[in-house]
Amino acid sequence: MSDVVRTRAQRKADTLARLAAPVVDAWVATDGPYLVPLTVAWHEDRIVLATDRESPTARSLIATGRARVGLGPTRDVIMIDTVLDRWLPVSEAPGIGEAYAGQNDWDPRTAGPSYIFLILRPDRVQAWREVDEIRGRTLMRDGAWLI
Amino acid sequence: MSDVVRTRAQRKADTLARLAAPVVDAWVATDGPYLVPLTVAWHEDRIVLATDRESPTARSLIATGRARVGLGPTRDVIMIDTVLDRWLPVSEAPGIGEAYAGQNDWDPRTAGPSYIFLILRPDRVQAWREVDEIRGRTLMRDGAWLI
Repeated sequence: MSDVVRTRAQRKADTLARLAAPVVDAWVATDGPYLVPLTVAWHEDRIVLATDRESPTARSLIATGRARVGLGPTRDVIMIDTVLDRWLPVSEAPGIGEAYAGQNDWDPRTAGPSYIFLILRPDRVQAWREVDEIRGRTLMRDGAWLI
Repeated sequence: MSDVVRTRAQRKADTLARLAAPVVDAWVATDGPYLVPLTVAWHEDRIVLATDRESPTARSLIATGRARVGLGPTRDVIMIDTVLDRWLPVSEAPGIGEAYAGQNDWDPRTAGPSYIFLILRPDRVQAWREVDEIRGRTLMRDGAWLI
């Protein structure tokens, strides 16, 4: 168990800091079930994915509109249920491209014309370390922060 | 990128060593989409999950028969597509319970009568670190090791 149980306000601050940190690697689950690690960006309160239009992740997200995103390690997790806001080719999103490349260690705009940005709106956010933080783990519900 | 591109035989050996190591934490994706970190065991060539019968993971797995399991970190991953072999209450599986408790840091048999073991058969296994290992990442297909 953790040494210290964080308050919910601390967990919210930790969550926002981790999403905004350099090179955010996350696990992205979509229906199939499909699961893959992807580098994400945090831009204007949205999670930004960059992947090939024909990848299983992009196809499932565009078909169903939903993904569940996990940040690890597994004993210090952030789980985010998301809804697809919109998607667009990397070549048509200069502002998002600059934000993504500025936060991460690669620039999807160099990946070719089949690459797209998928813009995900967080709907529910949960964060916990171990069982002593399971209580009160929900920080956002229906798109609204609870603290 | 990694310093050394591992051979496929090395990746298979690394995969089996990681599955058999103490306290294996994995990301388990099921339809919904749902995703959660769970401690798993590796017993008789099967991945063993322990969770509540009414959890989203158990309900989805029992309904669809499929889960995709990821082991991290995100830049040294093992991805395993699995098929549900069978499930049973923790109280009815002494051999599996001993194997699980011996490998991990808790014993699901103490978690109460609603807990079950879900026994997953690997169908496809992939392992890679970074883009230089994407080629040749598939180590098992249709339940059979390729090397």
